[in-house]
Amino acid sequence: MSSAAFDVLRKVTTATITTMLLKKGIRRCWMNGPKPLVPGGERLIGPAFTLRFVPAREDLATPESWGKPISTRAAIESMPENVIAVADAMGIQTAGIFGDILCARMKKRHVTALVTDGVLRDRSGVLASGLPVWCAGMAAPASVNGLTFVGWNEPIGCGGVAIFPGDIVVVDDDGAVVIPHDLLDFVAHEGAEHELYESWVFTEVEKGAKLPGLYPPNDDAKVRYAEWRRQLG
Amino acid sequence: MSSAAFDVLRKVTTATITTMLLKKGIRRCWMNGPKPLVPGGERLIGPAFTLRFVPAREDLATPESWGKPISTRAAIESMPENVIAVADAMGIQTAGIFGDILCARMKKRHVTALVTDGVLRDRSGVLASGLPVWCAGMAAPASVNGLTFVGWNEPIGCGGVAIFPGDIVVVDDDGAVVIPHDLLDFVAHEGAEHELYESWVFTEVEKGAKLPGLYPPNDDAKVRYAEWRRQLG
Amino acid sequence: MSSAAFDVLRKVTTATITTMLLKKGIRRCWMNGPKPLVPGGERLIGPAFTLRFVPAREDLATPESWGKPISTRAAIESMPENVIAVADAMGIQTAGIFGDILCARMKKRHVTALVTDGVLRDRSGVLASGLPVWCAGMAAPASVNGLTFVGWNEPIGCGGVAIFPGDIVVVDDDGAVVIPHDLLDFVAHEGAEHELYESWVFTEVEKGAKLPGLYPPNDDAKVRYAEWRRQLG
Amino acid sequence: MSSAAFDVLRKVTTATITTMLLKKGIRRCWMNGPKPLVPGGERLIGPAFTLRFVPAREDLATPESWGKPISTRAAIESMPENVIAVADAMGIQTAGIFGDILCARMKKRHVTALVTDGVLRDRSGVLASGLPVWCAGMAAPASVNGLTFVGWNEPIGCGGVAIFPGDIVVVDDDGAVVIPHDLLDFVAHEGAEHELYESWVFTEVEKGAKLPGLYPPNDDAKVRYAEWRRQLG
Amino acid sequence: MSSAAFDVLRKVTTATITTMLLKKGIRRCWMNGPKPLVPGGERLIGPAFTLRFVPAREDLATPESWGKPISTRAAIESMPENVIAVADAMGIQTAGIFGDILCARMKKRHVTALVTDGVLRDRSGVLASGLPVWCAGMAAPASVNGLTFVGWNEPIGCGGVAIFPGDIVVVDDDGAVVIPHDLLDFVAHEGAEHELYESWVFTEVEKGAKLPGLYPPNDDAKVRYAEWRRQLG
Amino acid sequence: MSSAAFDVLRKVTTATITTMLLKKGIRRCWMNGPKPLVPGGERLIGPAFTLRFVPAREDLATPESWGKPISTRAAIESMPENVIAVADAMGIQTAGIFGDILCARMKKRHVTALVTDGVLRDRSGVLASGLPVWCAGMAAPASVNGLTFVGWNEPIGCGGVAIFPGDIVVVDDDGAVVIPHDLLDFVAHEGAEHELYESWVFTEVEKGAKLPGLYPPNDDAKVRYAEWRRQLG
Repeated sequence: MSSAAFDVLRKVTTATITTMLLKKGIRRCWMNGPKPLVPGGERLIGPAFTLRFVPAREDLATPESWGKPISTRAAIESMPENVIAVADAMGIQTAGIFGDILCARMKKRHVTALVTDGVLRDRSGVLASGLPVWCAGMAAPASVNGLTFVGWNEPIGCGGVAIFPGDIVVVDDDGAVVIPHDLLDFVAHEGAEHELYESWVFTEVEKGAKLPGLYPPNDDAKVRYAEWRRQLG
Repeated sequence: MSSAAFDVLRKVTTATITTMLLKKGIRRCWMNGPKPLVPGGERLIGPAFTLRFVPAREDLATPESWGKPISTRAAIESMPENVIAVADAMGIQTAGIFGDILCARMKKRHVTALVTDGVLRDRSGVLASGLPVWCAGMAAPASVNGLTFVGWNEPIGCGGVAIFPGDIVVVDDDGAVVIPHDLLDFVAHEGAEHELYESWVFTEVEKGAKLPGLYPPNDDAKVRYAEWRRQLG
Repeated sequence: MSSAAFDVLRKVTTATITTMLLKKGIRRCWMNGPKPLVPGGERLIGPAFTLRFVPAREDLATPESWGKPISTRAAIESMPENVIAVADAMGIQTAGIFGDILCARMKKRHVTALVTDGVLRDRSGVLASGLPVWCAGMAAPASVNGLTFVGWNEPIGCGGVAIFPGDIVVVDDDGAVVIPHDLLDFVAHEGAEHELYESWVFTEVEKGAKLPGLYPPNDDAKVRYAEWRRQLG
Repeated sequence: MSSAAFDVLRKVTTATITTMLLKKGIRRCWMNGPKPLVPGGERLIGPAFTLRFVPAREDLATPESWGKPISTRAAIESMPENVIAVADAMGIQTAGIFGDILCARMKKRHVTALVTDGVLRDRSGVLASGLPVWCAGMAAPASVNGLTFVGWNEPIGCGGVAIFPGDIVVVDDDGAVVIPHDLLDFVAHEGAEHELYESWVFTEVEKGAKLPGLYPPNDDAKVRYAEWRRQLG
Repeated sequence: MSSAAFDVLRKVTTATITTMLLKKGIRRCWMNGPKPLVPGGERLIGPAFTLRFVPAREDLATPESWGKPISTRAAIESMPENVIAVADAMGIQTAGIFGDILCARMKKRHVTALVTDGVLRDRSGVLASGLPVWCAGMAAPASVNGLTFVGWNEPIGCGGVAIFPGDIVVVDDDGAVVIPHDLLDFVAHEGAEHELYESWVFTEVEKGAKLPGLYPPNDDAKVRYAEWRRQLG
Repeated sequence: MSSAAFDVLRKVTTATITTMLLKKGIRRCWMNGPKPLVPGGERLIGPAFTLRFVPAREDLATPESWGKPISTRAAIESMPENVIAVADAMGIQTAGIFGDILCARMKKRHVTALVTDGVLRDRSGVLASGLPVWCAGMAAPASVNGLTFVGWNEPIGCGGVAIFPGDIVVVDDDGAVVIPHDLLDFVAHEGAEHELYESWVFTEVEKGAKLPGLYPPNDDAKVRYAEWRRQLG
């Protein structure tokens, strides 16, 4: 992983990241569902560590299953530091995948964040754990009420998007985006440039400039921006 | 009603309550839809007083219907103190079942809370009434815009769950759960024990313990917990 | 436009407006989807300036399209002061119709508010622009990721409601309602009276009055209200 | 019940019935969901006999519940001849409310038809029973898998429409409509006239007439239709 | 319009057409919703003539509106021969956009087919009209029950796809696809070649060939297909 | 696998199978979505061979991907005879997972049936292949338009139900059910008995018997059934 690219991307909005990916023909990169449990926090980035659920079946999804070798508990103990755990809960909103204890353990293991298209349980406990969480809401019932856990570090879907182990996940107030592994450096470089351009445009708008010809720029705007960019260094 | 059980359950999360009900084979107890209008308040409990709506039909659902013997007004005047009113609005989110005036009257009659899978209207007025509300959002139109009120204290569905008069409802930040009347004492007793166990587990996790073998506990963890539990008294 | 009616309606809740429209047989006037990005602000009113999107097609919905004569940029430059821009995004929640720059330009042009059944992008930037926004949430991707912009000041649908240029839009914490142009004066006059009546009812409820006979009023309540209303002047 | 009106309405399409109800301001009369299990059959009419379900709860919705006093079995034995049974299954499509045996018993009791916004089970058995059925599809599981039966001849919702005992139900290939009891004669009389008018229009269209001025008619068309109508007697 | 391309495409499945469009980066070309009212008919093709609806509002969507200058009647009289009429009904399934009379008039005007993401009304009458129809089902109520007609030959969305006047529409048993005007010749030429290749593959599979290496072809398969193609002439 | 149990279950409806599974506490066994492409065929049974898709991402889901080692083609070549292939398409209805060629190859490999909560493409070609298919409909676009194939013989969800390799799948006109491997013999034995009982009940109903006391049986009915059962041998 390129820590330099990570440092750059911490200053690039997920909005800009999706526009850079569109330049490469990728429209399906933003997860529909995950929202910050606590809005207004800092942007986070990390490699994806995937978790996979299928629907519950009463003979499989039991509290006893929590002690099996393939369990959310075992998955958490396999997480390296600094990953972003991404859980495919098939968008089910009636069973909370994790509660306070599992979130506390993830925090202890230096997991950067938890992202899911499903929901969590025990809101006050999860908040107390200090783990940054992006999810689709809260439900009281445990995961086994609606979900069967089947494995980790497999390809998954989350919020309508494909995520493969090794892809990069970035989360901020707009939600969660995935950057395919091979596009990390492209997105970081182009994204940083784009942010600069948008900051110049914003200044122009503040001065009263009209949008047509500015964004996207016509030749005049390109010259003026180049000058501004040159002075910036 | 067992007021002792009520006192116990005020300290048990709805998350834990659903897990206790799962021990009895009950998975469908959490209402999908109702959320606290004001998060972070205290947990509330009370017997369910049900309200039932069907869809609007233009000859029935009129402002004039508010004056009929079967009306939301009459239902409210029939509510005993300390109940939790649960309204089956069929999940319809385009007509607010109650506004400020009806909520104020319920508050005056010492209703504990209002729970619905539908929405309310006049957000600032409802907040001003002081009635604790769990609902699926807000809409400006009155109930008659989308709903016809047909009765109270009948069996209803709310958020995908069956609720019968006399069942017990508990609400907190994770939403609303229903406890079948006959399971109240079981849930209270087991729930209190479970909360104790989880608080010990949380302490262990804070110390750095791994999850496998801890939750659910292996023999070693059982011994250590029993010791901790014994000292607690 | 009747600025007197506008002044009256700034003190009438959207809840009351929908009830007045129901007197004229209009049930479909509240938009399902738009919610205030910042709750608790003041109620806003203005004539509707409509924006229309259709679904994205990869040959049409490109960043290059932002520079075309029919573009969101050109639409914004056509907006008169004090309008409320209403965008038909077909309820799509995976592409943000506008971000910080376009909102800043609308603010600069003295647009009163932006309303959409879709979502915006770049939450912190939009908040920084100061433009009041009613929308269905946030998504990082740009409009072209899911939408093609096709025109302005045409009839549109927004949140299940028809909106024609020249209709009046009012927004508050309950969301957004549309008043057909010809009903503006009726709604303003009746709405103001209704608010007075409800404030009297609220006072009565605070004193402990029962609802039946009060709302809607029986003959006794009518007399008492008339007296109160007379004293009010 | 007016059997004369019933005889008239057997020749009036449900499409025309909804247009007649619209003349009285009623837009919500067609049930979204019920479709003929066997298309192309004859139009049927009868007074509504309602059945009501709420969601399943595992302690209530059991095969044992089929033997209780409040059960689908008891409801069927209470059905008078010639009714149309209308079941509120809340649109749930994962549990079949009735199978071959219950349909066969209803047929034996001379029930005219079964209408539901839910589904049936055992398709070949239901077809073999000979009972005309309008439903939203088929599912193998029994009602108790997703539903709890709670009563009959109560007001219900079905497919987004309110239905009260005593209302009239008409079903044909377009689905199921409800006629409020008090509007039966109006709808029958106006509907029959409207069908005549449409048959004349259809003839005109076959001759090559343009639609504007014909449907709705301008003065010339009114005269020509009156002549045609007069000759018809 | 290229009638030669039309003749070619009448022999190319909509499945193949979507694959050819994917070669040009276009994934959004198949309309989700329209299905043949009568399956098993011949494949049809024609330029799109668009119709646009917005939601109903009770003051606008009335039977009287059928006589206005902007009405479905006027739109039909504006249709050239051989077009495929495509109606944006926003996927609403509770109001039938057209019934027997309007379909009969379209048939009389030599309209090739009607396509909509909404529904029709009066199933037997529509079938009797002989107009080929692709729709999402049937509902008894008239368009004004849920829709307001606002114009024709504007850009629309239908089934999640953008359609501009002049685009080409092809319908068969799999549904309806749109070909952007500029891609017509490409799709016709490539599509015809692709069908040939698939017919060869199908023959190979019938002989027992394995799929890997065949579809997509490896070098050996390419040689064998080239030989078969050469002999075909 | 017990071929005797298979032979028994070919005569037991999926409706009865779900009731037998309910006796073991299993409510989630019927797949919501898969329907027979050709209704009225014979009931089929086989061990599940699972296929798994995640959402499409433009860099992964390409026609080129069809030639990769992990591809639908390779999966098909791994299928043993007599399995029922079950594909988790996440209920996506805008991309057909398989068309005529892949179905023809599965037929050639003696696959018993294909079941999916998604859709197929090229309806007439799939019918021509002769492979029995249970699916949620048809769409023209290829799988890569909306889906990325990621593996086979993994645990999957299909239609809201968990399916593990080795589970047994039964399909008939009501759709598709899964029998957990360990419950096969129980379901076969109990199911056959239950079918007998239902056939006796049906006969009784034909004779005019009332349902209460018959289904479920009271003591008298039990005696009469036992006698009938005894004579049957």
